Amino acid sequence: MAVYTQVDDSTLAAFLSDYTVGAPISFKGIAEGVSNSNFLLETDQSRFILTLYEKINDPEDLPYFLSLMEHLANKGLPSALPISDRNGQFLKEIKGKPACLISFLTGVSIDAIGQNHCASVGQALAKMHLATQDFSGVRENDLSVSGWRTLVEKTRDRADEVMPGLSDIIVSEIEFLEENWPTDLPKGTVHADLFPDNVLFMGTEISGLIDFYFSCTDFMAYDLAVCMNAWCFDQQHHFDPALAKRLMEMYDIVRPLTPAELEAMPILCRGASMRFLLMRLYDWLNPVEGAAVNLKDPLEYLVKLQFHQAIQDTAEYVV
Amino acid sequence: MAVYTQVDDSTLAAFLSDYTVGAPISFKGIAEGVSNSNFLLETDQSRFILTLYEKINDPEDLPYFLSLMEHLANKGLPSALPISDRNGQFLKEIKGKPACLISFLTGVSIDAIGQNHCASVGQALAKMHLATQDFSGVRENDLSVSGWRTLVEKTRDRADEVMPGLSDIIVSEIEFLEENWPTDLPKGTVHADLFPDNVLFMGTEISGLIDFYFSCTDFMAYDLAVCMNAWCFDQQHHFDPALAKRLMEMYDIVRPLTPAELEAMPILCRGASMRFLLMRLYDWLNPVEGAAVNLKDPLEYLVKLQFHQAIQDTAEYVV
Repeated sequence: MAVYTQVDDSTLAAFLSDYTVGAPISFKGIAEGVSNSNFLLETDQSRFILTLYEKINDPEDLPYFLSLMEHLANKGLPSALPISDRNGQFLKEIKGKPACLISFLTGVSIDAIGQNHCASVGQALAKMHLATQDFSGVRENDLSVSGWRTLVEKTRDRADEVMPGLSDIIVSEIEFLEENWPTDLPKGTVHADLFPDNVLFMGTEISGLIDFYFSCTDFMAYDLAVCMNAWCFDQQHHFDPALAKRLMEMYDIVRPLTPAELEAMPILCRGASMRFLLMRLYDWLNPVEGAAVNLKDPLEYLVKLQFHQAIQDTAEYVV
Repeated sequence: MAVYTQVDDSTLAAFLSDYTVGAPISFKGIAEGVSNSNFLLETDQSRFILTLYEKINDPEDLPYFLSLMEHLANKGLPSALPISDRNGQFLKEIKGKPACLISFLTGVSIDAIGQNHCASVGQALAKMHLATQDFSGVRENDLSVSGWRTLVEKTRDRADEVMPGLSDIIVSEIEFLEENWPTDLPKGTVHADLFPDNVLFMGTEISGLIDFYFSCTDFMAYDLAVCMNAWCFDQQHHFDPALAKRLMEMYDIVRPLTPAELEAMPILCRGASMRFLLMRLYDWLNPVEGAAVNLKDPLEYLVKLQFHQAIQDTAEYVV
């Protein structure tokens, strides 16, 4: 949540000389993104976000993420559009770091989540899944079952520092998921991280979907499971079936869920809980020196995992 | 350079319900200010900066700073204007912290300083000094000679950790300044911190003067000395007389310097160097745990101090 690399006016001017976006009239670092530096740029023509990729796991994935955003924006979804320079390039470099100029989206992130927000999210997620059926990019989900196993191995020895018994819980859950994870659900291009801070609203309408830097090719219903966890629990981590009903219902209207997908929801939600539990647990046990990032509580996702472990049937989510 | 306090959409909505500024359509934390959290707010009517004062030395000074900004904006200077709520209040509270909504100013901070920038700064500084002749607020400069003495006492024992001999230098300089600091120069309301990051430009014209949180009542020519140090040395800390000439010349056209002020420039520049040398030295020796603020090099201001110590006559600055 900080600007890691300063971009001075001469550097900005040199960068913008490759583009036809006008002259800067305002330029401010913004406190968004954990692994990027972001700047809000206003020119005499329009407004943009300039992103410097600081700690991207694999820079070779950037063209995939940016092509996906372009694909979605061209299909009329409210994704930011990467802006090409005079030579048609959108992936550039500033101070040795990959950098991209992206269109600015209005809208506000929501903390007080209501049913109409969930309805809009369900609808937008399904539209994204449909709009990417003809997207040619493919990227494996490195944070699915085998990635979780890696994180279990890296955290199990110290997990009980966070909560006694946690190590046993994650070991037994990864074994369950390895044995039972679905193999034949419909796949597509998923956002994989569509949390409230990655959705911009104007009222209850979505005006922006952002931060596609975990996007990958995976089960489309898994993306819905991530959203169940991110949108349908209250601040005290209590599940709200009314929110889940609107999310799933509106998703299903746009892209009907198959019987196999519906049946798999509880295990997909368990997997989605493990993904965030393990990542947060890893970050908690391995804090980055001097990082001004607020660590997120892994136990929030333990509560969600245990909630889903008790679900026998998808219908229980919406009653 | 970070957002210390998160403001969620419900908190923002409750805050804005006291105002008549419209509904939010964009809201982003910005990486500006060391002791404040700042947000860029766009409503369907206009754009604003929302500032939360996190570590202000004395919150009772805030009405002084905000009244000064209002005074300057009303006189047509490019200061941001504090926005009053429905009850005419501009100093409010968010999450227990003093907060103020301020008009947004376009413009870009400059790193590659040219003569025309210095000319604009000289002119704007003099205009500010003239525009505040009828400003009724008074605030003592707690970072003048007695404040420097306090900082010398707090840093002298460890100053040689930064550079051998530094302790002797600051002790002998504070003694010189205590004996020779002027007492009868024209006083007024000074910005006292008009560094390049506190000035916004459109081309070489100034579109914004910001961050009045060190403003106080002091010698007007001292403000010019602060600007000499901040604007007239290059990246290698070499003094550039051509920049100083334009700064002083344009200041003098708007508000002619008295012979006593002209004569005092070298000692005022020494004092202005000590103020930043000592503050940076103190911050260097007492880093705040976990603060994501880049410490500024105190020795930059030792170089400037030693440059001014060698000046016999103000005329030397501009040849």
